[in-house]
Amino acid sequence: MAGNTGASTSVILRLEMHKELVTFGQIATAIGDRGGDIVAIDVSGATKTTTIRDITVHVSDSGMTDAIVDKLRSLPGVKVINVSDQTFLVHLGGKIEMNPKMPIKNRDDLSRVYTPGVARVCMAIHDDPSKAYQLTIKRNTVAVVSDGTAVLGLGNIGPEAAMPVMEGKAMLFKQMAGVDAFPICLDTQDTEEIIRTVKAIAPAFGGINLEDISSPRCFEIEQRLIEELDIPVFHDDQHGTAVVLLAGLLNAVKVVRKRLEDCKVVVCGIGAAGIACTKMLLAAGVTNIVGVDRAGAIVRGETYANEAWQWYAEHTNPHGLRGKLSDVIEGADVFIGLSGPKVLSVEDVKRMAADPIVFAMANPTPEITPEEAEPYVRVMATGRSDYPNQINNVLCFPGIFRGALDCRASRINEAMKLAAAKAIASVVREDELNEYYIIPSVFNHNVVELVREAVIQAAIDSGVARRGRRGDKGHGEV
Amino acid sequence: MAGNTGASTSVILRLEMHKELVTFGQIATAIGDRGGDIVAIDVSGATKTTTIRDITVHVSDSGMTDAIVDKLRSLPGVKVINVSDQTFLVHLGGKIEMNPKMPIKNRDDLSRVYTPGVARVCMAIHDDPSKAYQLTIKRNTVAVVSDGTAVLGLGNIGPEAAMPVMEGKAMLFKQMAGVDAFPICLDTQDTEEIIRTVKAIAPAFGGINLEDISSPRCFEIEQRLIEELDIPVFHDDQHGTAVVLLAGLLNAVKVVRKRLEDCKVVVCGIGAAGIACTKMLLAAGVTNIVGVDRAGAIVRGETYANEAWQWYAEHTNPHGLRGKLSDVIEGADVFIGLSGPKVLSVEDVKRMAADPIVFAMANPTPEITPEEAEPYVRVMATGRSDYPNQINNVLCFPGIFRGALDCRASRINEAMKLAAAKAIASVVREDELNEYYIIPSVFNHNVVELVREAVIQAAIDSGVARRGRRGDKGHGEV
Repeated sequence: MAGNTGASTSVILRLEMHKELVTFGQIATAIGDRGGDIVAIDVSGATKTTTIRDITVHVSDSGMTDAIVDKLRSLPGVKVINVSDQTFLVHLGGKIEMNPKMPIKNRDDLSRVYTPGVARVCMAIHDDPSKAYQLTIKRNTVAVVSDGTAVLGLGNIGPEAAMPVMEGKAMLFKQMAGVDAFPICLDTQDTEEIIRTVKAIAPAFGGINLEDISSPRCFEIEQRLIEELDIPVFHDDQHGTAVVLLAGLLNAVKVVRKRLEDCKVVVCGIGAAGIACTKMLLAAGVTNIVGVDRAGAIVRGETYANEAWQWYAEHTNPHGLRGKLSDVIEGADVFIGLSGPKVLSVEDVKRMAADPIVFAMANPTPEITPEEAEPYVRVMATGRSDYPNQINNVLCFPGIFRGALDCRASRINEAMKLAAAKAIASVVREDELNEYYIIPSVFNHNVVELVREAVIQAAIDSGVARRGRRGDKGHGEV
Repeated sequence: MAGNTGASTSVILRLEMHKELVTFGQIATAIGDRGGDIVAIDVSGATKTTTIRDITVHVSDSGMTDAIVDKLRSLPGVKVINVSDQTFLVHLGGKIEMNPKMPIKNRDDLSRVYTPGVARVCMAIHDDPSKAYQLTIKRNTVAVVSDGTAVLGLGNIGPEAAMPVMEGKAMLFKQMAGVDAFPICLDTQDTEEIIRTVKAIAPAFGGINLEDISSPRCFEIEQRLIEELDIPVFHDDQHGTAVVLLAGLLNAVKVVRKRLEDCKVVVCGIGAAGIACTKMLLAAGVTNIVGVDRAGAIVRGETYANEAWQWYAEHTNPHGLRGKLSDVIEGADVFIGLSGPKVLSVEDVKRMAADPIVFAMANPTPEITPEEAEPYVRVMATGRSDYPNQINNVLCFPGIFRGALDCRASRINEAMKLAAAKAIASVVREDELNEYYIIPSVFNHNVVELVREAVIQAAIDSGVARRGRRGDKGHGEV
């Protein structure tokens, strides 16, 4: 996991220095010669013969840190006890906390929030379970559920190691949309047990965000939970990506003055995200979609052992195209990559239709780099923050859950996702729209509110909202 | 659940008033005549013929509220839309929230707490799972788990209705001891499924507080989880009660100048809490314990279908006493009631040994009221806050988990519970100790720290601590 993370950073080196064997000057030289910039020194312990110092060093990337640490380790009289950078420092003790909304100052307060007063509140919910939405955290709380099987690009790293991602997601839920989210990382990878567990813990939650669960288990887990729970269940890796992709694409076709319905779209990488994006495009009216995976195009009429691919074959590729990516890319208006590094060549791009649109979303290395593609594409998007037009799920999940919770939607359906995509696209005004600005920044403050409004309206129109825009005031809601 | 909750309160009455049928004066008279004190009036809506007003009224108890509401309902032209009191008002939207520990201000922050930077943190945990304690919320987070089967004195009210209690508990965990606690209310009452579910969600948590799970399932659930998880599992209804009871009793025997080991103790109510209290007393050195339930004394040598009672028969009642409570109470030094209202008579108390100690902890109505018992008992304690010497679990669970988390205990064993009880007792200084002050207030600020220290020492001494008092500094802990 070495390599530039895109974040300039400081590291703190804890060194044990033997006083007679090494001077601080030698240390400073070793750090400075390798590009490190010493910004602070703290002594954290000492014996007669040794000193322990924490040296804060500004570095430009983790390669520089490695070089510095290697050099320090080679110096006689120096022991590198620990290396911490800011990324690790912000994770100490975790990134989220649970707080009471009000203090318990005295006996009166205690008897209201706990026994004996709380008993009346419990009984009010017992008598009318829908009151859980008014009198508990349910109305604003989402579980971020993962089994740790497909975390970022890291693969099956397990539930403990998945926690930092889920905590980060909980931070974003709260900061972006005021949603209280709690990470549930599961010590099981069994489909049935995951379904049972999520159902068992559902009473506290108003929604379930599934995250980083590997394919094909993610399909059944999501589908079953949608059917068996009465709260929204949303696998963000599938649908968040699909929503933001569609948002970008809606604006991209405007830039090139095409109609999305008329476009030939090639989707490369027919995993969970690729299938979800395809469904989203179908819902948006695209008809000419060709899916390609390692084995080549998925062809209508063929039979596939993989259930998801069988569905795919029956719903895409209307002209029965066969062959590799380089075969089916001919004349495509749009390329959507959810596959791996460098699978799209410059030659492929050259064979696309005029004004090609390329969404190369493989992370961290896209299907084709913007540098290579630039001379030949009209609009380019990636999953990365260091190029224009980043397709980032952060644009979707806070607002879509905010809307779903606020109207007490029983599910998040295609209409709501479509509405969310259109809302995200609408944040970029017509007069701002250009090749390098088809999708808003994740820090754009208008996104969540516009997504929320659109999602609520779509939920009401499609009959899954259990509460109107303003809502009926219930017990205790004054 | 009507009745005086002990909390003086305000209620908000939302009334729809027909303008031509009723005047505000009539409303004010109806309220004032029944003792209510109008403190505020807000108009929240109006039509041509009706007005909706929110009237805030100070009342002394919920009986007064009921009388006012009944009268208002009888007035022509008045519709009582809603009645909210402060207890309900503090519950609106739930009582706890999840917050990020730091804001995500810019792209750099985002890339540290989320992708791509978070990937390195995930991999550090993947490479060394014990780092979950440093780099995730695990080290400070406890799950408060209930299936809603034995909530307060309300019985099997289900998981949604149990939430307000668990949220209240989470508030207390944080306010009293800085522990982040999250309520997990389970939509299953099956022993095996509860065990599976808690094991499945354990990775995020440093401890499990079981709560309000009915007997006898609570025994197996707790025991199995203790065996199968490597984090502390603690059924508070059993052990919290036992710890605080022992704390009170340690001080009560000091008041009457007896040695606890010499006392004859009668325990009435051999359910989960009664058994846990008995185990605690045995651990503290008491030998002469006689348990009594509805069927009478539990007798050594007899055979019981109930496994827990079989254990009880084998470990108590050394003199083989038989009969009802009124038979075995003869000459007892201590009565411990964990049963129901009014099971202990004044005649029973009169037949106890000199200087009788009575802990009548049935809630809300004790086994004997302090008013009845006062002429005959020397020291009296109850579970209620409106009498002296309240035996309240709030004295135990925050500090015992604080200690267990801080030393990364793998379990909470008898030695740690015993240490906690002694620490709670020690908060009352020798010169303060008297019949009416054997146990500290739940708001006493010394309790948590003393319990924490004692629990950590006991964990270290008994070999279940996985981290010393100061702890080794690991990766990132500078």
